[in-house]
Amino acid sequence: MTPDDIAGFFATRADLNLDDYIELDFTFECAGDPRAAAAHLASEQSTAQWRRVGVDEDFRPRFAAKVIDLRAEPQPIGFSVPVACAAPGEVFSCRATIAHPHGNFGPRIPNLLSAVCGEGVFFAPGIPLIRLEDIRFPLPYLAAFEGPQFGLAGLREQLKAFDRPIFFGVIKPNIGLPAAPFAELGYESWLGGLDIAKDDEMLADIPWCPLKERAAALGAARCRAEQETDTPKIYLANITDEVDRLADLHDLAVAAGANALLVNAMPVGLSGVRMLRRHAEVPLVAHFPFIAAFSRLAGYGIHSRVLTRLQRLAGFDVVIMPGFGPRMMTPEREVLDCVRACLEPMGPIKPCLPVPGGSDSAATLEGVYRRLGSADFGFVPGRGVFGHPMGPRGGAASIRQAWEAIAGGIPLDRHAATHPELQAALAAFAAPHTSPRAA
Amino acid sequence: MTPDDIAGFFATRADLNLDDYIELDFTFECAGDPRAAAAHLASEQSTAQWRRVGVDEDFRPRFAAKVIDLRAEPQPIGFSVPVACAAPGEVFSCRATIAHPHGNFGPRIPNLLSAVCGEGVFFAPGIPLIRLEDIRFPLPYLAAFEGPQFGLAGLREQLKAFDRPIFFGVIKPNIGLPAAPFAELGYESWLGGLDIAKDDEMLADIPWCPLKERAAALGAARCRAEQETDTPKIYLANITDEVDRLADLHDLAVAAGANALLVNAMPVGLSGVRMLRRHAEVPLVAHFPFIAAFSRLAGYGIHSRVLTRLQRLAGFDVVIMPGFGPRMMTPEREVLDCVRACLEPMGPIKPCLPVPGGSDSAATLEGVYRRLGSADFGFVPGRGVFGHPMGPRGGAASIRQAWEAIAGGIPLDRHAATHPELQAALAAFAAPHTSPRAA
Repeated sequence: MTPDDIAGFFATRADLNLDDYIELDFTFECAGDPRAAAAHLASEQSTAQWRRVGVDEDFRPRFAAKVIDLRAEPQPIGFSVPVACAAPGEVFSCRATIAHPHGNFGPRIPNLLSAVCGEGVFFAPGIPLIRLEDIRFPLPYLAAFEGPQFGLAGLREQLKAFDRPIFFGVIKPNIGLPAAPFAELGYESWLGGLDIAKDDEMLADIPWCPLKERAAALGAARCRAEQETDTPKIYLANITDEVDRLADLHDLAVAAGANALLVNAMPVGLSGVRMLRRHAEVPLVAHFPFIAAFSRLAGYGIHSRVLTRLQRLAGFDVVIMPGFGPRMMTPEREVLDCVRACLEPMGPIKPCLPVPGGSDSAATLEGVYRRLGSADFGFVPGRGVFGHPMGPRGGAASIRQAWEAIAGGIPLDRHAATHPELQAALAAFAAPHTSPRAA
Repeated sequence: MTPDDIAGFFATRADLNLDDYIELDFTFECAGDPRAAAAHLASEQSTAQWRRVGVDEDFRPRFAAKVIDLRAEPQPIGFSVPVACAAPGEVFSCRATIAHPHGNFGPRIPNLLSAVCGEGVFFAPGIPLIRLEDIRFPLPYLAAFEGPQFGLAGLREQLKAFDRPIFFGVIKPNIGLPAAPFAELGYESWLGGLDIAKDDEMLADIPWCPLKERAAALGAARCRAEQETDTPKIYLANITDEVDRLADLHDLAVAAGANALLVNAMPVGLSGVRMLRRHAEVPLVAHFPFIAAFSRLAGYGIHSRVLTRLQRLAGFDVVIMPGFGPRMMTPEREVLDCVRACLEPMGPIKPCLPVPGGSDSAATLEGVYRRLGSADFGFVPGRGVFGHPMGPRGGAASIRQAWEAIAGGIPLDRHAATHPELQAALAAFAAPHTSPRAA
């Protein structure tokens, strides 16, 4: 590109009608002139050839993505990760914000993903290492999406659970049990105090535990538990499957007694989720397989909060995400970014419930609560409830006892002295992230 | 895990009925004992808690994934990329093969992805860096999939083009032109010798160039071009959109004259593609947005050949992929791996046409052909045809002239002396990968 070509891909916010643009924050490492690299990044994701041969025209004013902010610093060590790069020259570490005209593709999730995570972004000349750090949408774009149907407030209303975390549990063993004993575990966990007993994200509609049988068994167990505890409960059935089965599995599971549904967001595809959202009669819950494959590394890929925002946009009422603690290998700041992406204002799109999870138990609840500084979260132990030495009823009770202590300002150890389930949980489960650590 | 627990996740191929397992090749870096890390990797992706509390049972024999091969070497420099890891201890660089029982999830793409690219793989304790390098399916699993409807052979038959590459071109400017002049460019490129004129992967069903108008204009132009050249041609329309619109857009585009359809595989979701495959009357062509976000780095993510295999399994007849040359930042060996994944035997699943692309022109055709050692590929210039100094008809002619020279054993330069379109192409386009380079 000539200097004039490059200038055609730069603008200031004041130059633009911001309602027409989504904004993308990138970090990247480039070889050669950062201004040329940023112009290529804008060009390749929008109108890379902006005129026909022999025709005097320029599609850039309306159709080009524009660099609206760029900061670059020399990085004398070269690229931080070994990688092939076409461009020669000095290496720079850069931050850029690109305004991308959403009229190029419209309010469609697959076309949005193609624009912001596609060839233009990951194959811009001179930029072998790049990470999409964040995304912002203008109101007119958001207004074209449905977003969560129930959202955080709707889920709290369904459970009549206000001013405290929502207590989930992943029924374990996750794989291998037939429906009847599987339902018995769920029943025990509800009696112990769980709000939501859920299928593991790996448990599908499978011959050795068909969804129809499982939902019927769990649905009946849920009704018994609701009567015995006089409290609303949720059976969260995993309907992750081929997209053309989602509506049927929704109907089947809901008719049998499931009153919320789990979908593995990226494996199914966010567009499939949006389709299901239009059909759904119950809250939809996202699980996170595949996301770490492109979000873990600091210098390459897509920050997980971008996916959190997109899951909310696609219509999930709840987003389960990697949580705190070394087991989940996610920086504390990133977990907080994702939690915030669920809760913060997003135009007409309702807030959804964040569920930062991973190796949780009664021993980790306080740490999660202190880090978040709010009770607007879901807590989702697996073995912390279903591997509890006193079984799932005791495991669930230990979680509720931990919350009683936290809410009452009672030290956990002291509360445990009079609550054997809590005591057993604290003894059984290591507490790798009981106290907050620095981000 | 105890030594006994760990042993429960190891097996040899001779121990297993291999028809019941998919095989996964991983490379990873772990902290601490590699055998324990590999056992966790198998456990977390299958049955992480294999018995109920207080019940004498073991779900591992039927439901556990098993480590069937493990090689580990100390890596004294520590992790190759800075990353948080729960486990302490010496760092090892490892290769492992895991046999995963597909009965755990069945022949469903979202559940397959959840198993092999999910939480179990990317959050196995002690393994912060891991890459899924390859995947192999047993025949009974493959038999449950439809795969390509037409495949390589069907596409060749449709075009009556045998024993040579298939010549595609991406109509440019890709974004901004209304239907009529856009169709004119396609018409010119067909007359010049393209087999397939295609929409850019970023061009959607958009108000300033609606798919219906575009397909009608291109469909009519295609018929004229077929009559004038007495040769079958293809207009490849991009119907990438929300999954619940795919069938309607298929019908609309095909009725208007599109005779192959482009879908951005990962943005739409492979399951959405499989659904479309069951409905499709024309070949389906995959484009590659999003894949680089998790496949570029050598030490983390998912090797792109895994996605190539899954795209073929989902039913694509053609897979466009990052090709040779520094611009595409993909190691030559990886391109060859992906090409092979399209063509090699895969039980009942037909071969599909590989299209390794990126900044191609008449100057790069010979290099691509020599590297592949076969004419079973598609060649997909964009600006190399539509940015040719003599326009798209000249650009397309330059590609065919380059092939004439290659097929006839004539040096390109000598052929160019009597073929002005070829000469102009060689002069206009840099040839960054004319001659093969080492992988």
